[in-house]
Amino acid sequence: MTINRQWIFASRPQGMVGPANFEYRETPLNDAPLQTGDVLVRNKTFSLIPAQRTWMNADSAYFPPIPIGAAVSAPATGEVVQSANPRFPVGTRVSGLTRWEDYSLIKADRLTISPLPADIDLLDALSVFGGNALTAYLGLLKIGEPKPGDTVVVSGAAGSTGSMAVQIARIVGCKAIGIAGGPAKCRHAVEDLGFAAAIDYKAEPVAERLAELTGEHGVDVYFDNVGGQILDDVLAHLAFGARVVICGAISQYESSGTWRGPANYWQLLVKRARMEGFLVLDFAKKFPAARAEMLKWLADGSLVPSGEVVDGSLEDFPAVLRRIFDGANIGKLILRI
Amino acid sequence: MTINRQWIFASRPQGMVGPANFEYRETPLNDAPLQTGDVLVRNKTFSLIPAQRTWMNADSAYFPPIPIGAAVSAPATGEVVQSANPRFPVGTRVSGLTRWEDYSLIKADRLTISPLPADIDLLDALSVFGGNALTAYLGLLKIGEPKPGDTVVVSGAAGSTGSMAVQIARIVGCKAIGIAGGPAKCRHAVEDLGFAAAIDYKAEPVAERLAELTGEHGVDVYFDNVGGQILDDVLAHLAFGARVVICGAISQYESSGTWRGPANYWQLLVKRARMEGFLVLDFAKKFPAARAEMLKWLADGSLVPSGEVVDGSLEDFPAVLRRIFDGANIGKLILRI
Repeated sequence: MTINRQWIFASRPQGMVGPANFEYRETPLNDAPLQTGDVLVRNKTFSLIPAQRTWMNADSAYFPPIPIGAAVSAPATGEVVQSANPRFPVGTRVSGLTRWEDYSLIKADRLTISPLPADIDLLDALSVFGGNALTAYLGLLKIGEPKPGDTVVVSGAAGSTGSMAVQIARIVGCKAIGIAGGPAKCRHAVEDLGFAAAIDYKAEPVAERLAELTGEHGVDVYFDNVGGQILDDVLAHLAFGARVVICGAISQYESSGTWRGPANYWQLLVKRARMEGFLVLDFAKKFPAARAEMLKWLADGSLVPSGEVVDGSLEDFPAVLRRIFDGANIGKLILRI
Repeated sequence: MTINRQWIFASRPQGMVGPANFEYRETPLNDAPLQTGDVLVRNKTFSLIPAQRTWMNADSAYFPPIPIGAAVSAPATGEVVQSANPRFPVGTRVSGLTRWEDYSLIKADRLTISPLPADIDLLDALSVFGGNALTAYLGLLKIGEPKPGDTVVVSGAAGSTGSMAVQIARIVGCKAIGIAGGPAKCRHAVEDLGFAAAIDYKAEPVAERLAELTGEHGVDVYFDNVGGQILDDVLAHLAFGARVVICGAISQYESSGTWRGPANYWQLLVKRARMEGFLVLDFAKKFPAARAEMLKWLADGSLVPSGEVVDGSLEDFPAVLRRIFDGANIGKLILRI
């Protein structure tokens, strides 16, 4: 009898997410034959991402709320170990959405996984090949519409999406500035990832540094992962005709009350600018071309995957997730079990 | 010797604007010959508009702050009484930006007026032919991009810009809903201006009424003149792919502290929507076509000018302006002297 170790979503967090919201459980794996179309995946690597926090809310708005009593939804890669689906023979390596558990049964009516090309390793699949990189690529290029020479600012710039967005801005010919927390992240951003500049929001006055770095011209494209005060600071330094891409708002996810709205939204009028939200899933048809271009950049060295792989066990999930919200991680945070 | 009666801008309002911010003065009109290109206009009708309040701030962002000690800038119509400019012979009727005074000297290097066609009367010039109507027309159609069948919501809907925006939405085939304050304004909006519905924000819960009126689908285009709570309420009811046009924020103009930002801006992501600001002056090339179409609608009765003409004297300015911010006026507020 095979044991499936699982982290069950036990209660919806009010404010900060923590170990009390999860329950560790060991369940015998059901050994009945799979139903037609179903696939059983042995999970190998998991991505820990800020958006998971929003999926935990009862009113999760663009993603079905994670049900209480179910294992926690997460981006992951793994290998097919049983299959009743000819598209996924046993041994197929897959990436997509599974759950915090050793084995995830993926039902035919909601196939949240796709096969991985042979030349992609399981870690790249969660970094340059994963949802965050696609989010950075498509959000920046399709919504932000940067032109060569534009000044692009990205917040959460040391995170999984942000570190990709700033590099992509650089690659397409923009002056790419990141905002991140702490000297280690900022040094990494400039030295390893090729940012034109990094602003340490924990140590520097963001508004003043933006004014210094972007001058009279201001910010042409702002890719926002954080919301809150930093969004207001950047709105105060927009260029005429600027585009503000709303990708995330990690500074607000753990607020238990009303979110803070950007008081400087009025600058959209002053600067004839727009602020626009998007979800990467709406661009699914563009995924293959986006991946192909990012793989090319990866191969020629212009795009550097930034991340941290924690080799651990399933037991570590709640503690590793916490690192995202404490701002402890640099780049993509991956748990390999 | 001719006396020029003037209202001088005496102090910048902190919060509410009132009589203390202005000083009445009678000044002899300079009878020296005009310099080349200059024009002297005898003002006849004045438009009182919310934006004037923002021009009174030292940090007025998109319009030069009205200088302390100068007569107060205002949209007006009048007649040329002296001219050193061949484009404006004596007797030419003009509309544009002059000042709260009997006679405005318009300098050649900042010709803020233009000649009026012969078939436009001076009141129409400030309503359908004026800046507010152009703002409604161009902001709604060029930024809001309504499609036939869309649900369009306009706040400040009984005001000079709003009453035009809702009617234009109706004319181009949309379900046009207005938000206004008080039963008289709402009745006028539905009975006289042909709104599909009007929400009285002073007596009704806006969020609930929006939910009733727009159902599951939500709001395709929101034309915002007010900001504050109403902006948040509408953001919570956006349709997928919605467009939010930021035109004004009268609820915030008299706030002496930080403006209130829209906490529900996050809905831009959830609904893949955009929020965009604009200034009508950026569309100057489209003014003739916009005016021509509105005059056609005026002639066929589909567009109804909504407004109130106060016959008074120059002495009445501060009190009449106050009516805008007290929500007392219906439609365009015009002072005829």
